[in-house]
Amino acid sequence: MPLPDEQIYPHATGAAEALVAKHQEPQPLVFYAGWFCPYVQRAWIALEEKGIPYQYKEVNPYKKEAHFLAINPKGLVPALEYGGHALYESLIICEFFEDAFPAHTPHLLPTDPVQRARARMAIDQISKTLVPTFQRLLPAADPEAQRTAREAAYSALRAFAAGIKGPWYLGEEFSLVDVAIAPWIVRDYIITENRGYKRAEVGAAWEAYAGRLEKRESVVNTSSLREHMAPIYGRYLRDEAQSEAARAIREGRAIP
Amino acid sequence: MPLPDEQIYPHATGAAEALVAKHQEPQPLVFYAGWFCPYVQRAWIALEEKGIPYQYKEVNPYKKEAHFLAINPKGLVPALEYGGHALYESLIICEFFEDAFPAHTPHLLPTDPVQRARARMAIDQISKTLVPTFQRLLPAADPEAQRTAREAAYSALRAFAAGIKGPWYLGEEFSLVDVAIAPWIVRDYIITENRGYKRAEVGAAWEAYAGRLEKRESVVNTSSLREHMAPIYGRYLRDEAQSEAARAIREGRAIP
Repeated sequence: MPLPDEQIYPHATGAAEALVAKHQEPQPLVFYAGWFCPYVQRAWIALEEKGIPYQYKEVNPYKKEAHFLAINPKGLVPALEYGGHALYESLIICEFFEDAFPAHTPHLLPTDPVQRARARMAIDQISKTLVPTFQRLLPAADPEAQRTAREAAYSALRAFAAGIKGPWYLGEEFSLVDVAIAPWIVRDYIITENRGYKRAEVGAAWEAYAGRLEKRESVVNTSSLREHMAPIYGRYLRDEAQSEAARAIREGRAIP
Repeated sequence: MPLPDEQIYPHATGAAEALVAKHQEPQPLVFYAGWFCPYVQRAWIALEEKGIPYQYKEVNPYKKEAHFLAINPKGLVPALEYGGHALYESLIICEFFEDAFPAHTPHLLPTDPVQRARARMAIDQISKTLVPTFQRLLPAADPEAQRTAREAAYSALRAFAAGIKGPWYLGEEFSLVDVAIAPWIVRDYIITENRGYKRAEVGAAWEAYAGRLEKRESVVNTSSLREHMAPIYGRYLRDEAQSEAARAIREGRAIP
């Protein structure tokens, strides 16, 4: 029997807990979050990078409050409440921060239209190839399936890593490309410990980039303790997770 | 034996052929296209709506030219060549037009940040739920599988249609939401003729919206004759298509 998903640890821990404590006062921007969710961490990193004032509200994914469901019927996190509107989808939320808070720097997308499009192409690569290979490697227990899934991950990561200009993906400026991949880098210890993944196997540029990214202040400050992550990813490793993403992978659908 | 995909009709026909003829002169913006591809049509509609000068180049997907592959190694269409850079992904291309040609109106995204985010959320719904249900209904030959796939399509379309403000998706202004869904509306006769789909079954608002959209000048002018589409979609209906999207559906992967 799988552990019921309701037993997810109820709040952020470690550095992330300290950050949550600083963002309890009401603000025009309410950030609905789940401390363990990589998509939430994207939006959270962007908020921190830009210094946008926000109120953090933890959403228990299995006991959602009535007000939250009223504005956001699908109950997705990350979500924003702003001016009476609910906004969701992590990358759309990050672009919203750029559009709605133009005075808050750094800008996380290049101003040059071609470079901006190229940044979005790299982010698209993260969504369409990198995250899915990570998600498929997690439940791969059988050694042969695991080897195949690991090679697919290496291949996708090498294609992405070929575009790293350094120190950040686009060069000197930290950008949404870095924001979009960071949550999977801080979680890759799970596939290292359980699925034989090694950053060095992707290549030296990737290993150096990943090491830099996981030490970035906004990334560190939005990360909780690994000990509370373990029970959540244990379900993915045993192929028992009940999230929409986990079900989609089992049923061969696109990850929503 | 499937027909080889190489036998795709080599160029646009009907209204689209006349439009191609007007866009043969060299321009700073080169638009690499495939006349039959719905993702290409998105970018093409956006170019036409905004009146951006472009040179149209038809790419035979099975005999790609060396220069095209040199700038765009994956050989994807739609693609742009602009200032020595290759850009691809239909929605990223459409956003690029907004960023790079701000003097060309109409603007296809709202200027208000919240409304802009909501437009992107509707486009995300098209990519993640509407297009996949269309793609899954095409190869569903068995009556029970067909009924299931058709109901899934109706359900996804009803959820989307609930957001139509009229006359266009966001209200008075034609937008990227309309651009993003239009190519599948002009192709829905295929599932009507072969899979029992009826616009009216989705609802009156959808039927009226779809009828308006398929008559929009930019949509009409970028559409080729149905007789040359039939052999292409025949392969999807027989589940024999060899495109990346078709293979992904068969293998249970996300549609790239």
